[in-house]
Amino acid sequence: MLKLYCAPNTISTVVVIALNEGVHWEPIRVDVAGGEQTRPEYLKVNPKGRVPVLLTPESALTETGAILEYLGETALPDLLPADPLHRARMREVMYYLGTTMHVNHAHMRRGYRWADQDSSLSDMQAKVSETMAASSAYVEGLIEGPFIFGSSPTLADFYLYTLSTWLERDGVGIEAYPRFAAFKAAMEERPSVKRAIADGFFG
Amino acid sequence: MLKLYCAPNTISTVVVIALNEGVHWEPIRVDVAGGEQTRPEYLKVNPKGRVPVLLTPESALTETGAILEYLGETALPDLLPADPLHRARMREVMYYLGTTMHVNHAHMRRGYRWADQDSSLSDMQAKVSETMAASSAYVEGLIEGPFIFGSSPTLADFYLYTLSTWLERDGVGIEAYPRFAAFKAAMEERPSVKRAIADGFFG
Repeated sequence: MLKLYCAPNTISTVVVIALNEGVHWEPIRVDVAGGEQTRPEYLKVNPKGRVPVLLTPESALTETGAILEYLGETALPDLLPADPLHRARMREVMYYLGTTMHVNHAHMRRGYRWADQDSSLSDMQAKVSETMAASSAYVEGLIEGPFIFGSSPTLADFYLYTLSTWLERDGVGIEAYPRFAAFKAAMEERPSVKRAIADGFFG
Repeated sequence: MLKLYCAPNTISTVVVIALNEGVHWEPIRVDVAGGEQTRPEYLKVNPKGRVPVLLTPESALTETGAILEYLGETALPDLLPADPLHRARMREVMYYLGTTMHVNHAHMRRGYRWADQDSSLSDMQAKVSETMAASSAYVEGLIEGPFIFGSSPTLADFYLYTLSTWLERDGVGIEAYPRFAAFKAAMEERPSVKRAIADGFFG
């Protein structure tokens, strides 16, 4: 059985909801708020000190986007588009979310990764509502509705859903982006997301 | 014919060297140093105001990782591993490079994306040598040699090569990481990289 090192309100919830779409799996909860991911025992699992980590029968796999693709190829084929250009479009969204939108958000609480002074961290925090609003406006233009690519979700939708749950605490009201708000609502109708919310992975 | 919006010493050089591996293509040079990517005409091509953009017969595709995968699937099959777990490992490296190592580097000259005060930008710049050294140490542990996964490169190697060329100006000496240094030297023996260097895409 697949196991996932994961924690509420982290990017690992992307993989939680994807797994809930139809994979038999088990969570290994990591106390990220308490810093468990930085301790020697956890660093043996993932030297990068982050969640998620997917334990497969063969190995431990890290990086949200790579784990999603692995699940799409091995267990969740309905979430991986069959056409190469559609797959490319899905990956274009996933890489944007990973390299730009998630990074914008990370400057709220993880600014110490890139700067040392308290004044820098405050400056970064103050700008997050601006950068996350810009990301939301870009995402708004992508969404065909209700899901990113129309009537069915792909792997990218699970990535975007988790980021949508961070907007409020980043100072961005999703209601200013009607397609993005409708996307979030549509995702919250899926049993995979309902189960993750009930299991305490969001909020 | 495929066309690529690209500029020297940017992440678009990843795609330049991948295309040089065996695709008939043509560059559309963007004056990134002069800010061309932020002007209205370019924003019609890519509203994100970044390079690279790959023009295919069907559309304009953005995001380095997504473009690499598209090229692997449609034109450069030797660079895309056949085994799903090996593909997952390749993507694990690509996502790490895109979401962590490239982001570390971006705090040297692009800190204004995430903070406003001059003191914050200086603070960020001062920390780049530390974060890029940490990324180099992580990469050092990944490389089987001479390429990341042994005797043949995958898409991930082209991504890593470009980042290796940024280390010196980020204050990191690659010679402290012998496998990483040997990887860089091996990549520079490839005609694809030699041609990109001759065409002025590096340095």
